[in-house]
Amino acid sequence: MAFGSFVKLFMPKDKVFYNLFEEVTNNLLKMADILVQALDEHDISKRTPMLKSLEDLEHRNDEATHKLFIELGRNFITPFDREDIHALATSLDDIADYIWGSAKRLTNYYIDDVDDTVRAFADVIRRCIIALHSGVKELRDMKNIRAITEACVLINSLENEADDVFDNAMMQLFAYATNPIEVIKKKDLYQELEIVTDKCEDAANVIESIIIKYA
Amino acid sequence: MAFGSFVKLFMPKDKVFYNLFEEVTNNLLKMADILVQALDEHDISKRTPMLKSLEDLEHRNDEATHKLFIELGRNFITPFDREDIHALATSLDDIADYIWGSAKRLTNYYIDDVDDTVRAFADVIRRCIIALHSGVKELRDMKNIRAITEACVLINSLENEADDVFDNAMMQLFAYATNPIEVIKKKDLYQELEIVTDKCEDAANVIESIIIKYA
Amino acid sequence: MAFGSFVKLFMPKDKVFYNLFEEVTNNLLKMADILVQALDEHDISKRTPMLKSLEDLEHRNDEATHKLFIELGRNFITPFDREDIHALATSLDDIADYIWGSAKRLTNYYIDDVDDTVRAFADVIRRCIIALHSGVKELRDMKNIRAITEACVLINSLENEADDVFDNAMMQLFAYATNPIEVIKKKDLYQELEIVTDKCEDAANVIESIIIKYA
Repeated sequence: MAFGSFVKLFMPKDKVFYNLFEEVTNNLLKMADILVQALDEHDISKRTPMLKSLEDLEHRNDEATHKLFIELGRNFITPFDREDIHALATSLDDIADYIWGSAKRLTNYYIDDVDDTVRAFADVIRRCIIALHSGVKELRDMKNIRAITEACVLINSLENEADDVFDNAMMQLFAYATNPIEVIKKKDLYQELEIVTDKCEDAANVIESIIIKYA
Repeated sequence: MAFGSFVKLFMPKDKVFYNLFEEVTNNLLKMADILVQALDEHDISKRTPMLKSLEDLEHRNDEATHKLFIELGRNFITPFDREDIHALATSLDDIADYIWGSAKRLTNYYIDDVDDTVRAFADVIRRCIIALHSGVKELRDMKNIRAITEACVLINSLENEADDVFDNAMMQLFAYATNPIEVIKKKDLYQELEIVTDKCEDAANVIESIIIKYA
Repeated sequence: MAFGSFVKLFMPKDKVFYNLFEEVTNNLLKMADILVQALDEHDISKRTPMLKSLEDLEHRNDEATHKLFIELGRNFITPFDREDIHALATSLDDIADYIWGSAKRLTNYYIDDVDDTVRAFADVIRRCIIALHSGVKELRDMKNIRAITEACVLINSLENEADDVFDNAMMQLFAYATNPIEVIKKKDLYQELEIVTDKCEDAANVIESIIIKYA
């Protein structure tokens, strides 16, 4: 065996991981865009198929995450700590699950009147995922640590914004709601949407711990 | 000290871990069997003690899991990655917790009419645990990697089946239910049952990652 | 470079971790005290600002946890396993989150009549955190392993006590409640309070695994 092949054999297969992570955040971005667009669509006959199309993207996310775990099992040398790759892949996968979970609640619970709270959540989620995607892209060459840090700080503040949206929604719900089944549906939907931003924050925390170790 | 004892001292104490994992999945199998049988029992005065008997088995599971963690702390050398042993033990323990949680909801919420949804969940849970038990048993000698992979694939598809059971149940609940307290009870019970299969999938994912590293 | 500085450079910075962990459990103790006092206060105009003051303490907890993660990223050598530091910091952070989450529910859901169940939870939570704080303090010199073990055993039994409080509360709620919105509010509050003790148990389990490895 030539020395070149020997080196190749033990060379960290960084690109595989970076490509898969970018594939995942790019897919999440598509999901967030569709969610925002669907909620802006007043015609239910058009909105429902848009929400249902998220299932396909959630499956694609599952597949990419599965590939990430297989690569993690196969590769002894990884671009950053194994535990960080595992935690980042898991939280990105959770983001897709909870977006799809929110979309399912909108259709399965027959929530036809999309309110301002739901739209506010979708908007925060989209901004979180834009920041996440840009942070993940920068991990590839680590040239712009500052941009990564700023993305993480932004996600943390967006998660606080989502908490406020949730708290205000709950206060309104319990102050004015008289239909208990409406309360059950909306509370459950709002919680599912709020968890999306929690999972974005989890992902941001992993990214932050990766750059701390690198610095 | 003879060389033999020296080797013994550092020999991976594989059997301890395999025995404990099998003890746990065997116990889970008993829990699933009792759950299915209890739900088939129409006489509440007979069904309730069957459901309550699950508490004892959940305690036994706790003890075996505790032993697993103690062995993990004591043994430097383990049959597979420490993080995988920890994750597998945790998800198996969660399965027992959520089965017992489901049984408690049936009695504490006075859910006397066991519906088809609950029975469908119990059936999927039982099939998941049968696959899990067979997969865990094969870890001992790793001679039949194919059987382990098939068990994991089966559990993943059963978890999808459970998701569908849940989605259909929620659609029915919100389409027809008029009693809000009934909705609260059933939604909570269905969610608890669905989480059992999520935890089975978590366990299957750990098993898959163990065999990827071994292969 | 003198040998002294060289040693210093690689000396485990134990104190940083111990100080931060004690800062966190001390802060949790303040939160538990305020929670108990607020729930004993019958005048809502006095109770509400007490509950709201928990937000500040929750933020301080976030900051200390953040410092713990930064130190973990920076220090190659740590007083105990990295995964244990991470898990302990995470579970202690969760305790603060769920105490603040419980306080928010009391005010946001307009739960003006604090019942015996809520007070029983607050009391168990306070006793859990007292045990946790004493256990964490003993980690510093590991001279009193027995006291640490006893703290962990106590927390486990207190978590069981909290489970019983929850089960009895649910049985009462579904046996007598007629107002579904009341049921939604109380069930959600009780669950949030019960999770506080779950997270205390998680922390105790990490502490136990630390002393098993040390012994």
